[in-house]
Amino acid sequence: MNFQGYGAPAAVGYGSGFPGQQQQDPLYGYFAAVAGHDGQISAEELQTCLTQANFSGGYRPFNLETCRLMISMLDRDMSCSMGFNEFKELWAVLSGWKQHFMSIDRDMSGTVDSQEMNLAVSSMGYRLSPQTMSCIIKRFSSNGKISFDDYVACCVKLRSLTDLFSKRNQVQQGMAAFQYDDFIQCTMSI
Amino acid sequence: MNFQGYGAPAAVGYGSGFPGQQQQDPLYGYFAAVAGHDGQISAEELQTCLTQANFSGGYRPFNLETCRLMISMLDRDMSCSMGFNEFKELWAVLSGWKQHFMSIDRDMSGTVDSQEMNLAVSSMGYRLSPQTMSCIIKRFSSNGKISFDDYVACCVKLRSLTDLFSKRNQVQQGMAAFQYDDFIQCTMSI
Repeated sequence: MNFQGYGAPAAVGYGSGFPGQQQQDPLYGYFAAVAGHDGQISAEELQTCLTQANFSGGYRPFNLETCRLMISMLDRDMSCSMGFNEFKELWAVLSGWKQHFMSIDRDMSGTVDSQEMNLAVSSMGYRLSPQTMSCIIKRFSSNGKISFDDYVACCVKLRSLTDLFSKRNQVQQGMAAFQYDDFIQCTMSI
Repeated sequence: MNFQGYGAPAAVGYGSGFPGQQQQDPLYGYFAAVAGHDGQISAEELQTCLTQANFSGGYRPFNLETCRLMISMLDRDMSCSMGFNEFKELWAVLSGWKQHFMSIDRDMSGTVDSQEMNLAVSSMGYRLSPQTMSCIIKRFSSNGKISFDDYVACCVKLRSLTDLFSKRNQVQQGMAAFQYDDFIQCTMSI
């Protein structure tokens, strides 16, 4: 899955302390226009921006829930919004995912069906039972079809939940134990 | 939390086998108009219907994700859509939640803030740490405010996740153990 760098600290020398370097970046003008005077992108602003860039296809509004989810995943400073470095990282990740999605969507319909989604999830290295895959597909599809924004929400959640599970499965026995408060905190924020 | 009957089988004699009785119900005409010729309401149709009924306030579109979540919670026949009985049950539940929400929203702003949300969650009987409450509020708010549709999504998820946890915590030691596939199936479908 092309989400390298997620959860890692921002790369050293990435320009965060050098506004001049940021402003030379071709993406910066776009970021600044969307972010407005506070220099930060909220979930609503991210939705506007991804809709305008037509990430969802057909100029449909990009799913706001997916935007909140992505900001929550990348929000290292707990600001509930996104600075330029986080935005740039997200843009690269989303572009990678869009390419992956288009390669799965063989009939170029703009959506993937359950068979294509099964293949995509397996190719990311997840080993899930047919029942679990069926639940996931049911949850993220409309009329049996999964759009790009729902595909992204699915990938982000699957990755985050797998990470949460792995951290509590240190002895590698395939089981993870949660206390109630920990369980609610982990699962409600995703 | 006013979500009685959720998860329970449909009440006996509820009229499901008696179209005449259903049609006498004042809500039936509305349901039939929204459901169209298939007699079932999809998440998109539910969104249209709850937006028109102004559940979200200010005639903003009701959050589609919350609609999917509610259908998923009530979908006993795994059809991904909702028949009249499920719709009627949901309508009653939502009306109860709307009243609860309005009683929390003391300044009548149409949204609740973090302090009001903390009180609401405690009054439902949940005992969560300040960190967990802070994560939840962050996840479901926009600019620190929680709208009715996000409040509903939060209540539905919290209830479902607590139920899932309780089922795996039979010995009541405050811990629940999950296998990976089970964990993913439970948490991805909510």
